[in-house]
Amino acid sequence: MDVSSRPRAERARQAADVLRQQIVRGAFADDVLPDERTLGARLGASRNAVRDALALLRSEGLIARRQGVGTTVVKPKYGHGLDRLAGLAETLDGYGTVTNEVRAACVVPRPPEAIAERLRLPRDAEAVYIERLRRLGGVPLSLDTTYLAADIGRPLLARDLAGRDLFALIEETAGEPLGSAEVDVHAINAGPDTAALLGIPAGAAVFAIDRLTRLPDGRPVDAESIHIRADRLTLHTTVHRRPVSA
Amino acid sequence: MDVSSRPRAERARQAADVLRQQIVRGAFADDVLPDERTLGARLGASRNAVRDALALLRSEGLIARRQGVGTTVVKPKYGHGLDRLAGLAETLDGYGTVTNEVRAACVVPRPPEAIAERLRLPRDAEAVYIERLRRLGGVPLSLDTTYLAADIGRPLLARDLAGRDLFALIEETAGEPLGSAEVDVHAINAGPDTAALLGIPAGAAVFAIDRLTRLPDGRPVDAESIHIRADRLTLHTTVHRRPVSA
Repeated sequence: MDVSSRPRAERARQAADVLRQQIVRGAFADDVLPDERTLGARLGASRNAVRDALALLRSEGLIARRQGVGTTVVKPKYGHGLDRLAGLAETLDGYGTVTNEVRAACVVPRPPEAIAERLRLPRDAEAVYIERLRRLGGVPLSLDTTYLAADIGRPLLARDLAGRDLFALIEETAGEPLGSAEVDVHAINAGPDTAALLGIPAGAAVFAIDRLTRLPDGRPVDAESIHIRADRLTLHTTVHRRPVSA
Repeated sequence: MDVSSRPRAERARQAADVLRQQIVRGAFADDVLPDERTLGARLGASRNAVRDALALLRSEGLIARRQGVGTTVVKPKYGHGLDRLAGLAETLDGYGTVTNEVRAACVVPRPPEAIAERLRLPRDAEAVYIERLRRLGGVPLSLDTTYLAADIGRPLLARDLAGRDLFALIEETAGEPLGSAEVDVHAINAGPDTAALLGIPAGAAVFAIDRLTRLPDGRPVDAESIHIRADRLTLHTTVHRRPVSA
């Protein structure tokens, strides 16, 4: 069989892929992985390949070896849906409490040109800047920075930025639902500053997400840049081959 | 103004976020970045912060300093839509030719249990395994491995796996369009093996994507694990706050 004759490193990668998917889908309800022999059978891999796969997933911070227990899932990896526009606290409802350390919340008289263009602000218009370090159950999850059009952002400065999603606050103060958002997802190695804030090693893979959110009339009002710990969050979506017909 | 009084590392990160977004959106048509002073104005950042931001983006492999030219975009970053189910070659139509190095294409008499469950294969059913290293314009872009239900996968083994997307081939041989797929997106640090195949440094951030594709009747037929160079590809989507009404 061709598959088992391929080099060990490749079989380890492949076993790691299957195992990662299983961990994320919650296949190990008690968060303890079976022994190497059982894993080998499930993954169709030799014990050497299983061992290498476990090493890969340990280096991703997904699992750890615990004395007297075996290999355990370090922490659940949460799924953030890319199917619809939702804030983090909304998405993680039921997983724990999202709290936000508000690192900046202020009016910016002259936002950067690039931001002003993105938000289609009139010349010399001010903007509102908000930066929050977001934690789930006390552990850092993401660093969210955003520029908002001033009419949308100013009322937020008096609201509960430490406890609420911006989307919900915007909708309450604007009195209308948000419309849509364009989302770009990057994977990058965290710089030292971001890594320190998020509590991960410098160089660890993180998601860097640009999200430009619009009102229903199409006006862009919220230009976010979000760095998310990739060891704690997975993005998921369901896609269709053809547009879903009405 | 609060924003400019924050530490330099944070301002650099923030400037890098804006600049990354601009590069990806093609704001620098000739692929040459303006000088630091001009960038500072556009990004609302000091020259020191601009310099640090450029260093961050250089370490991401997004830009490079070229003697006598200045700072240039190393290569375009392609956008892969998460809005609908599409193959890589379909998505990159117009950007260049996608070619595939077929590293494995074979019938697997006993697929791993975890895969058999995922594909809902009957007991003792065989599967088809295909592994391809995909290049765009000759440069590695992704490493795609997949297990297919045998009735769907077997006819593919005789087809042009080096030149075509699997989705298109499946639809031609199955005689019906694919239905939908569940997609999980991870960001991980590439292991040495994957990094070598993709031509990137070990540890570089890559997307690891699990995609389970179904026929219109809901049967899962294609369980893929895809590693994509994150320095070359961005995932993008448009999301709506409320379900789009018919």
